[in-house]
Amino acid sequence: MQIAKVRGTVVSTQKEPSLSGVKFLLLQFMDEEGAPLPRYEVAADQVGAGLDEWVLVSCGSAARQVAGSEHRPIDAVVVGIIDTVSVDDRRLYNKRDDYR
Amino acid sequence: MQIAKVRGTVVSTQKEPSLSGVKFLLLQFMDEEGAPLPRYEVAADQVGAGLDEWVLVSCGSAARQVAGSEHRPIDAVVVGIIDTVSVDDRRLYNKRDDYR
Amino acid sequence: MQIAKVRGTVVSTQKEPSLSGVKFLLLQFMDEEGAPLPRYEVAADQVGAGLDEWVLVSCGSAARQVAGSEHRPIDAVVVGIIDTVSVDDRRLYNKRDDYR
Amino acid sequence: MQIAKVRGTVVSTQKEPSLSGVKFLLLQFMDEEGAPLPRYEVAADQVGAGLDEWVLVSCGSAARQVAGSEHRPIDAVVVGIIDTVSVDDRRLYNKRDDYR
Amino acid sequence: MQIAKVRGTVVSTQKEPSLSGVKFLLLQFMDEEGAPLPRYEVAADQVGAGLDEWVLVSCGSAARQVAGSEHRPIDAVVVGIIDTVSVDDRRLYNKRDDYR
Repeated sequence: MQIAKVRGTVVSTQKEPSLSGVKFLLLQFMDEEGAPLPRYEVAADQVGAGLDEWVLVSCGSAARQVAGSEHRPIDAVVVGIIDTVSVDDRRLYNKRDDYR
Repeated sequence: MQIAKVRGTVVSTQKEPSLSGVKFLLLQFMDEEGAPLPRYEVAADQVGAGLDEWVLVSCGSAARQVAGSEHRPIDAVVVGIIDTVSVDDRRLYNKRDDYR
Repeated sequence: MQIAKVRGTVVSTQKEPSLSGVKFLLLQFMDEEGAPLPRYEVAADQVGAGLDEWVLVSCGSAARQVAGSEHRPIDAVVVGIIDTVSVDDRRLYNKRDDYR
Repeated sequence: MQIAKVRGTVVSTQKEPSLSGVKFLLLQFMDEEGAPLPRYEVAADQVGAGLDEWVLVSCGSAARQVAGSEHRPIDAVVVGIIDTVSVDDRRLYNKRDDYR
Repeated sequence: MQIAKVRGTVVSTQKEPSLSGVKFLLLQFMDEEGAPLPRYEVAADQVGAGLDEWVLVSCGSAARQVAGSEHRPIDAVVVGIIDTVSVDDRRLYNKRDDYR
C-alpha cells in the first residue's frame, strides 16, 4: 500500500455503468518523510476521506476486494484514513495534531 | 486510475481474435496540474471518448471488468469521460469550459 | 497496452514445461512520437510478428487471456501487429509505408 | 519479491472492515548493495518482523495468498524475515551479525 | 518477461509456511545491449539456474502459474534459463560462449 494525501475530486458522468455511485478522489503520494511526491492517483473511496487527510491506498486487483467492487473496473482504492505514521520510533504524522 | 487526454488512435487488423471490434485509443497521461506527462498508454474504449477529451483510465486486471472484455488480453481501458477535476477546492478542469 | 517494435528473439530450452512451443520476442517500447524508449520487454507471440514490425503489447494477467496460455507463467504478450498510429489527426506510423 | 528494511508502522482505525487486526509496517526498499532506496511501501505483516529487520516483500495479487487475506484489499505483504543475502558468493547481509 | 542475470541468493527461515522449500535467487535485470541495469528482483526458482546465468523472469500473478505455486505469495519466478538473445539479427548472448 502507499501513503497519500487527498488533494481533490474527479467527476465523470459518462462512464462504465458499474461505476455509478462511486466517489473518485485525487490523491498525491507522500514519501516516508511526509513530503509530497510528484505522483498522484485517482482512487475510489468508500471510507469517506476528506480533503488534506492522509490515507492508505491499495492498487491493482486488490482494489476490487471491497464490498460492491468485485466486478468494477477500478485499480486503486482508499482502504483507510491514517491516524499515525511512525518512522524509527519518531512520530512522522498524527491525524489529531497535523490534520485540522 | 489515472487522468489522461485522448491524443489519437491505433489500428491493428492482424490481432488476437478476441480483440476484433475493440477500439484502441492513444492516451497521454496528465499530472495533477493538468500538464501532459511524457507517458502514454493504448487503452480499449467502450465509453466513446473523442480526441482531446480528458478521460479516466484503469490498468491491469481491472481492464477486463468491462462488459464483453472478461477474457480479452487487454490491460488498459477508458472507464469514463471526465467532467471536472478539482484540486484543493480549485477547479483544474471543466469539460464544458476547457473542451471545445 | 503499449506500442513496441520487434527487435529480436530470446531462446530458452531449459524452462517451465508449460512454455514449450512458445515463441519469445524481444520488444523495444516506442513513445508517442515513434522514437524508441530505453525500455524493452520479452513477450510471447502467437500473432506472428516479424523483425522491425510495430506491435501492440499487453502486460500482466492480460497476457494469459490468449488461447492456450491461461495457465502459462507469462506476463507479456503481443496482441496485434499495428497497421497505423494516428496522433492529433497526424499519421505517425503506417505499416505499408514505414515497414518494408 | 523485493528486499526491504522495516522503518516504522502505520495505524489506521477508520478503514475497510476486512482490514481490522492487520498490522501495517512501513518498509524502505534496499538495493543489491544493501543501500536504502528512495522507495518505500506499506505492507501487511503476519510474520512478526521488527524495526530495522530486513524482510522479503511480495506485491500485487500475491499479497492475498496469505492465510486470512484472500479477500482483503492489500497489495503488499511481508513474506519472510531475511537471514542472509549473498551476492557473487559474498555475504551482503547476515541477520546474526548485522541486526542487533 | 525480463532478461536478468543470477547474482546471488536470499535465505529466509522465518517466513510464510507455504514458502518452505522455495529457493530464492537475487537477479539483476539486463538491458537489450546486455548491460546490467540498476534494478534487481528476488525470484523463486524451480528451473535450477546457477550464478551468473542469464534467465527469463515473469512477474505478477504469472509467478503463481508454476506447479505447486498456485497459492504461494510470490510475485516473481524464473521461467527459463536463456540459451541465446538475438537483437537485429546480431547474437547478443549465447550461453555456450558467454557463460563459463
